[in-house]
Amino acid sequence: MLINGVPADHLPASDRGLAYGDGLYRTLEVLAGRPQLWRWQWQRLAADCAALRLPCPDEALLLAEIATVCAGLPRAVAKVVLTRGSGQRGYAIPAQVQPTRIVSAAAWAGYPPERAMHGITVRWCNTQLGLQPLLAGIKHLNRLENVLARSEWDDPAIAEGLMLDSDGTVVEGTMSNLFWVRAGQLYTPPLDRCGVSGAMRACVIDTAHQLGIAVTEQRLLPAELLAADEAFVCNSLAGIWPLRQLDGHTWQAWPLTTRLQQALAAG
Amino acid sequence: MLINGVPADHLPASDRGLAYGDGLYRTLEVLAGRPQLWRWQWQRLAADCAALRLPCPDEALLLAEIATVCAGLPRAVAKVVLTRGSGQRGYAIPAQVQPTRIVSAAAWAGYPPERAMHGITVRWCNTQLGLQPLLAGIKHLNRLENVLARSEWDDPAIAEGLMLDSDGTVVEGTMSNLFWVRAGQLYTPPLDRCGVSGAMRACVIDTAHQLGIAVTEQRLLPAELLAADEAFVCNSLAGIWPLRQLDGHTWQAWPLTTRLQQALAAG
Repeated sequence: MLINGVPADHLPASDRGLAYGDGLYRTLEVLAGRPQLWRWQWQRLAADCAALRLPCPDEALLLAEIATVCAGLPRAVAKVVLTRGSGQRGYAIPAQVQPTRIVSAAAWAGYPPERAMHGITVRWCNTQLGLQPLLAGIKHLNRLENVLARSEWDDPAIAEGLMLDSDGTVVEGTMSNLFWVRAGQLYTPPLDRCGVSGAMRACVIDTAHQLGIAVTEQRLLPAELLAADEAFVCNSLAGIWPLRQLDGHTWQAWPLTTRLQQALAAG
Repeated sequence: MLINGVPADHLPASDRGLAYGDGLYRTLEVLAGRPQLWRWQWQRLAADCAALRLPCPDEALLLAEIATVCAGLPRAVAKVVLTRGSGQRGYAIPAQVQPTRIVSAAAWAGYPPERAMHGITVRWCNTQLGLQPLLAGIKHLNRLENVLARSEWDDPAIAEGLMLDSDGTVVEGTMSNLFWVRAGQLYTPPLDRCGVSGAMRACVIDTAHQLGIAVTEQRLLPAELLAADEAFVCNSLAGIWPLRQLDGHTWQAWPLTTRLQQALAAG
């Protein structure tokens, strides 16, 4: 682990990342030192820094630090955390910010390949996402809603939980974004009021466009998701997991989802 | 500073308090080693632990640690942070939790006494509080809304900003709770959808009851606050600050607020 470029695994307890969750993060798959989906990861990181008015690190520096912490790991999960550092007491953003940059990695074996091949069972979460347009989309460190939602079940046969917002529309999974297919077109919920805009979501949208598949951001109700031709969740570690079972409904074939998986695998 | 009872000022970067804001805190005034408003601070701390399913520390242990970090400081601000500690990757609450307990203190001179005596100028914040009943009232570590709200102004003549929820009702200050007076009765917004339930808020409610003043939880609109006979914000460091100016409106006398201040000062 590197903290501000120095090998370390502890940080000051006065850090605003701890005090207020005043920061953001990304989780990346790294193969032989090369972060996957980097173009989208970097886009999202830079956008989130701007949204939180956090100084954005230098891209080359970050790539070098990721390679350093992943050295010797053929397949790794890297995590980048950026916080607003330590400051005087109180919520106000300090005039002089010395951000904290934490880059860490762990060996990673991936998820069971059946999930991508044969689909997953998902559930509805009771924890709803509050609406907060100022923070929507940002992968910030205020993640208690996700903690509560992911702690609703511990049955390992359920791979993911889907979350509604407080208006009752479907937004995302606890750790993934959601897409669905209707009449050959791809849809995904807008993330303008809550939710996390993942790097894989951005990559899926770009990949669909390259395949000539229209992608529309649209709010949807739970019943509408159950009526979809196909549906899948995705994130940068899992790739694409088709939905097989949800709330008594079963999907058995995912032709468009499979096309997207193949296009992603082909790079 | 003590971390889990041991003198230290750094904590593992893997702590869930940093990763997800998965924890809570309290800020206390400590006079000659004795935390003020302890009865209410402890009530709130224990309630917040229960709400987040976080193991609650022993009360006597916590009091001893607060006294230790405040030793030699006649007047101090102490901060207690409790997190869910380090755990495996992912949002789910670990089966085995080793919580982190951080107790720190700093010398403190108090706020300018004019604020309590002559009232303060406050402003409306543009940052609105999202509605999240599952986290409402808890002084948890997901405080980005407060950071954004408190960063909207830097004019030192404005002592506090008032926040609305996304329904447009007035909830609290960025670092304080709100009360208002109408026809000799006291009102405060319910904190069942958002906001922080402060120790001083609980103390004010109990003190009002002892004085025979009715206290009602009621939602209110900005225009209704401007029409109040009196209004004040409070927290455990500031005590009670009457509102003098807001949005072109001026209050010049606060008879009931002053009675509460005197009752609090008398202990």
